[in-house]
Amino acid sequence: MNADSAHDATPAYLSRMDTWWRAANYLSVGQIYLLDNPLLREPLTLGHVKPRLLGHWGTTSALNFIYAHLNRVIRRNDLDMIYITGPGHGGPALVASTYLEGTYSEYYPDVSEDTEGMKRLFRQFSFPGGIPSHVAPETPGSIHEGGELGYALSHAFGAAFDNPDLIVACVVGDGEAETGPLATSWHSNKFLNPVIDGAVLPILQLNGYKIAGPTVLARIPREELTQLLSGYGYEPFYVDAQTPASATHALMAKTLDTVIERIRSIQNEARRNGIKSRPRWPMIVLQTPKGWTGPREVDGVQVEGNWRSHQVPLAGLAENPAHLKQLEEWMRGYKPEELFDKNGRLLEDIRSLSPQGRRRMGDNPHANGGVLLRELRLPNYREYAVKVSQPGATTGEATRVQGAYIRDVLKLNEPMKNFRVFSPDETASNRWGDVFEVTDRNSMAQILPGDSDIAHDGRVMEMLSEHQCEGWLEGYLLTGRHGFFSCYEAFIHIIDSMFNQHAKWLKVCNHIPWRRPIASLNYLLTSHVWRQDHNGFSHQDPGFIDHVVNKKAQVIRVWLPPDANTLLCVTDQCLRSRNLVNVIVAGKQPQPQWLSMDEAIKHCDAGIGMWSWACCDDGGEPDVVLACAGDVPTLETLAAVTLLREWLPSLKVRVINVVDLMTLQSPREHPNGLPDSEFDGLFTKDKPVIFAFHGYPFLIHRLTYRRTNHASIHVRGYKEEGTTTTPFDMTVLNDLDRFHLVEAVIDFVPGLRERAAHIRQRVRDKLVEHREYIRVHGEDMPEIRNWKWKE
Amino acid sequence: MNADSAHDATPAYLSRMDTWWRAANYLSVGQIYLLDNPLLREPLTLGHVKPRLLGHWGTTSALNFIYAHLNRVIRRNDLDMIYITGPGHGGPALVASTYLEGTYSEYYPDVSEDTEGMKRLFRQFSFPGGIPSHVAPETPGSIHEGGELGYALSHAFGAAFDNPDLIVACVVGDGEAETGPLATSWHSNKFLNPVIDGAVLPILQLNGYKIAGPTVLARIPREELTQLLSGYGYEPFYVDAQTPASATHALMAKTLDTVIERIRSIQNEARRNGIKSRPRWPMIVLQTPKGWTGPREVDGVQVEGNWRSHQVPLAGLAENPAHLKQLEEWMRGYKPEELFDKNGRLLEDIRSLSPQGRRRMGDNPHANGGVLLRELRLPNYREYAVKVSQPGATTGEATRVQGAYIRDVLKLNEPMKNFRVFSPDETASNRWGDVFEVTDRNSMAQILPGDSDIAHDGRVMEMLSEHQCEGWLEGYLLTGRHGFFSCYEAFIHIIDSMFNQHAKWLKVCNHIPWRRPIASLNYLLTSHVWRQDHNGFSHQDPGFIDHVVNKKAQVIRVWLPPDANTLLCVTDQCLRSRNLVNVIVAGKQPQPQWLSMDEAIKHCDAGIGMWSWACCDDGGEPDVVLACAGDVPTLETLAAVTLLREWLPSLKVRVINVVDLMTLQSPREHPNGLPDSEFDGLFTKDKPVIFAFHGYPFLIHRLTYRRTNHASIHVRGYKEEGTTTTPFDMTVLNDLDRFHLVEAVIDFVPGLRERAAHIRQRVRDKLVEHREYIRVHGEDMPEIRNWKWKE
Repeated sequence: MNADSAHDATPAYLSRMDTWWRAANYLSVGQIYLLDNPLLREPLTLGHVKPRLLGHWGTTSALNFIYAHLNRVIRRNDLDMIYITGPGHGGPALVASTYLEGTYSEYYPDVSEDTEGMKRLFRQFSFPGGIPSHVAPETPGSIHEGGELGYALSHAFGAAFDNPDLIVACVVGDGEAETGPLATSWHSNKFLNPVIDGAVLPILQLNGYKIAGPTVLARIPREELTQLLSGYGYEPFYVDAQTPASATHALMAKTLDTVIERIRSIQNEARRNGIKSRPRWPMIVLQTPKGWTGPREVDGVQVEGNWRSHQVPLAGLAENPAHLKQLEEWMRGYKPEELFDKNGRLLEDIRSLSPQGRRRMGDNPHANGGVLLRELRLPNYREYAVKVSQPGATTGEATRVQGAYIRDVLKLNEPMKNFRVFSPDETASNRWGDVFEVTDRNSMAQILPGDSDIAHDGRVMEMLSEHQCEGWLEGYLLTGRHGFFSCYEAFIHIIDSMFNQHAKWLKVCNHIPWRRPIASLNYLLTSHVWRQDHNGFSHQDPGFIDHVVNKKAQVIRVWLPPDANTLLCVTDQCLRSRNLVNVIVAGKQPQPQWLSMDEAIKHCDAGIGMWSWACCDDGGEPDVVLACAGDVPTLETLAAVTLLREWLPSLKVRVINVVDLMTLQSPREHPNGLPDSEFDGLFTKDKPVIFAFHGYPFLIHRLTYRRTNHASIHVRGYKEEGTTTTPFDMTVLNDLDRFHLVEAVIDFVPGLRERAAHIRQRVRDKLVEHREYIRVHGEDMPEIRNWKWKE
Repeated sequence: MNADSAHDATPAYLSRMDTWWRAANYLSVGQIYLLDNPLLREPLTLGHVKPRLLGHWGTTSALNFIYAHLNRVIRRNDLDMIYITGPGHGGPALVASTYLEGTYSEYYPDVSEDTEGMKRLFRQFSFPGGIPSHVAPETPGSIHEGGELGYALSHAFGAAFDNPDLIVACVVGDGEAETGPLATSWHSNKFLNPVIDGAVLPILQLNGYKIAGPTVLARIPREELTQLLSGYGYEPFYVDAQTPASATHALMAKTLDTVIERIRSIQNEARRNGIKSRPRWPMIVLQTPKGWTGPREVDGVQVEGNWRSHQVPLAGLAENPAHLKQLEEWMRGYKPEELFDKNGRLLEDIRSLSPQGRRRMGDNPHANGGVLLRELRLPNYREYAVKVSQPGATTGEATRVQGAYIRDVLKLNEPMKNFRVFSPDETASNRWGDVFEVTDRNSMAQILPGDSDIAHDGRVMEMLSEHQCEGWLEGYLLTGRHGFFSCYEAFIHIIDSMFNQHAKWLKVCNHIPWRRPIASLNYLLTSHVWRQDHNGFSHQDPGFIDHVVNKKAQVIRVWLPPDANTLLCVTDQCLRSRNLVNVIVAGKQPQPQWLSMDEAIKHCDAGIGMWSWACCDDGGEPDVVLACAGDVPTLETLAAVTLLREWLPSLKVRVINVVDLMTLQSPREHPNGLPDSEFDGLFTKDKPVIFAFHGYPFLIHRLTYRRTNHASIHVRGYKEEGTTTTPFDMTVLNDLDRFHLVEAVIDFVPGLRERAAHIRQRVRDKLVEHREYIRVHGEDMPEIRNWKWKE
């Protein structure tokens, strides 16, 4: 490492950095409080202050302190570094710091580096029509909003994977450190390869307090904290804030130099001599007062170094002139007249402390990953097709077929190192085992001789934590790469809230011109509700898609491919898409295959369609529509049609299959929504529709409630009935099986109740026979398994 | 401690325990595999084996081993102990062990202690009409299914709080240990008071593998693991499985004696001499092969001590006669003829190793908490009423009023020590600050002189982890106590999946006669979507209730009280209810109050009602119905009615408010559903309904889609638009404000589009005026804040 000694931490240099820090703190307080008089050129009056004070001071000054110090090591060592702020509510800090380095004004020219720009900078913060209070997508240099705490470190590691030259500085608040996701994310160091990956520098910001009380990690002995962090596999370096501030600067600078040197030496050693053992990466524990440099006391009560500084240390300014005065003193204490010139521009001597161009953390392209995004090389998915000579003649395991395709995506993109798959220990269980022909599970922990498919450079990221998988993948995508998350359907709810935050991030990015599109977040949900043979009720929940459709239609897609070939089409489409969340639900068990590849492509292109080969309506108006979405419902629907053909040969039945669930919604609600006329053409305007659905029935009503024929749509789906029983019995318990579907037809087609009473009896007899059979044999009747789907 | 030396770990005693363990393992394998020939009295044939092999062997034998050893210390020390099994998929172990101790047959007399009963025991497991493969509610002694991993320790601590004589043994799998919730739950020891609480004995079961690969904790050096566990605040004791098994028994027994002695001495010291410092509680690390005592190799590949033993080590028996033979050898290796008498009953010498009566872990009443449940003493909630002389005349903060009531619930039940409140650091923020008049935040970590409202025996459980709050509360409820969880609305999604598991547990319990009802799981969701002034978009998500209504109607209630008095009624009702999940959504900001206490009681009793004082329909058929649910929508609806009264005085407007959201659903769907005739009476059969809703609009459609007038219901709610802006602007961004509501009335009442075009223009002007005002002033127009709600 050739450090540039011009940036050594001399007392003079540190004194300039302290000035930079004062400027950042001044601008942070200004954002929270001021509407006008940005440089305090006149005495502060109430008229200069915002009527509503909304923001978080407590964490802000320490974030600025860290920014200042990272700037020095970036310049000294010419580092490629981004900054992830766990306490993202400290938004003023990142806005202030990127403003000082000039990035902010480049992205937002209106917020110029002069008095008028500073006034805008202050005014816009947490103000109607302005910017959010958090480190949001609007903030240059950010890939992490941090509104919901817990994911800073997993995002940081995701960003570092396959970015060997990148260092991700990641501030972890001691509040956030109490969350589950953060607590396990320390273990990400068992998955970071010093040769092919970059480094993560965790900085635990121990300011002692959260909203209203002390934090756990601040109230255990230092020795215990050291044990904990060492037990997580790190080498902790402590920086305790001291008086005078110059001592803290000196300690932080020295520590950072040590830590950067340690990172480089770990990397150099591994890159020169290969990986001998898992490195013990350095980290920093920065202990400071909360609300550092803010008011010590307000109204005789301690504020700095206390939870009371969490949001706005001085409030009620209108009622309390002393508070206004104290605010003015606080701000003047940073000596703005020593920081900015007469035009309001930061003095050049201070300004020059920032790195240049794309080395500025606000302008690092990794933090606007779309800029770096390269297209994936995708194999021709048609070549993985299951041969389907006629519908139902072939049996296949859809996700296994998909796994072969994913294997080749991994293989084709191995040179670019920009694609990984993520799963909580379920890659093999989800039938993607083929991927292990070309790569391995990733582990930097101990690998034993008998281990199979595990390597330090594996591209399959498995940790038994959905939070980690999601966080890593998000970090990977946000920095311009591609990936896929495969998960048991029921347990994807574990990351409901993380999905929320990512979907919100994407929604906002769609309105920020300089944010370039990133690869979509792709989920395969399998081991689904209908086939939890080993696990039963606790593993049955198809509700993630209900959760997903609450988010903005522009960023949401839900796919229910009924067989392997449709799954292949959909997978290809998802990997090509940008700025979306794609949820694919598909089973891993052997199932009849319906569509040839050509048919599958046509079906997936439309997203929904009539399966004329299964209909018995002579192409005319049907008596009843049987619709289905999902692999098991499709199977049962086609079985029901077969029964109807035999039992009620004169009944005209139309079969519709839905792959793209959002086609059901009105085009006013979702861009993929089918026009009303086409919907009416498929579903008729008044005929009964029996809809067999993979998930909770309500979702179909919710999506179709604006459609002409909605009142005639009768949905069967999962109604929260289940246990460890046979696959067919699961459908029976929820009235989704072929017999119940036939019964629904009898119930809803006018006149059939009377005319087909004998068929209803036959259906009832079949169900009794089924129940008796499984009770005795413990498996489904052969006739269920060997159904003839198509003449 | 007076240990009973008759149960000392002598070689002879340990040898008998080994026999007990063999019996438990035999019964476990039998459950997974056999339909018949339970005692292997004849050669094993395919006809004796289940056609579908569904279960998990890998973890099972170690769970039995632990059970056997815990039995000894229970008897030796007369312990009150329950057993929480993190790897709940090891269901066969807990069923086998409780069968051996006699509990199982007491709960299920059909499964008797004889050959026929054993056959039933085997057959029922993972078999249609039988029992689940997991440690489910059906399993005596269980409060934790463990299907979804991560919550074992937080459940264990929840069970131990306020149970000073209880020891909760908690097995943590090394797979589960990778999850976020589990990783942070180790810190629960900072909240366990050795005087008033019981003890938790974590047993980390380090078998090295999860479904398909090694675990993280098994692949770090032992020294690092010790640092980690010490850093979490424990004193780890290691028990490594050895050959011969007798050595392992001896080591485990000795370690357990030490550990129990350590627990007792921590408790005795604190109970005699007070709490000097946080104790360092002992824990055990039990390292064993995965699939311990199972087949070493199958088809030449290692199985014992490998992930391949996770589910069924020997499969494909029909195709592979060698596997059948190996299964028989495996089972005969346990020597059933030495374990059971000719009638299939466990030999008395082995049987007598189990504790007696309620000391048996399968029969411990703490594991069937309803048995121990005592009614809460509840204050008269009417006494906390906000005085409302006329609607809208008073302003109040609903959750602050509720907080005073909760304070007195805490106070009244302090002697019983059976009520706690839980929150991720938000009790004060959520305006429940009054509780600190009678109790404190709980902490066993360091308390500093300047700290306020923190004590070792506080009943307010705050850790910045929704997972911990939820897990602790569930454990507390399941063991027969009461509690309340207050949370920011958006972040309750963090525990979506935990809620799922609890709701599923309750649903199943409703069908198990011996499971006695427990107190409901009560949520206050506040700091809601409409008032995220400080935080903006990332903190806006009202979708938890969408998630909740997917679960069985019998266990789900959703409440949207519009003001303080209705919130008081609802809170009282929730605390009295049993076996439910109650979700209350209520704001914490100052809002107009609508109902006197008498009116509130009447309104909450009905759950929904016409607010005749707000209507202007002369009691007759209205032109339009304005419905509302939630505090902010209620405010905007009443403001809209005021505008309509002024601007369109001849329009007949009816106002309906919904407190109990489930009244909207058909009574066929939910027990609280309003009969169709009453619904039609309120909402009319054909008049337009403008429904202002707190959450995502779809939910109202979903709940009302079976209602006569559904096609005329137009919902306004959160449509995922927001940022840090003014409170009123949040409603404007989502078309929920008074002006948009008036516009909707004009749109949907026949003829008004033409007749009231000038009113529409006035509305548009108002919205422009609003936008301009907030852009300049940063706060809402005074007319918005000072609306006159009622003449």
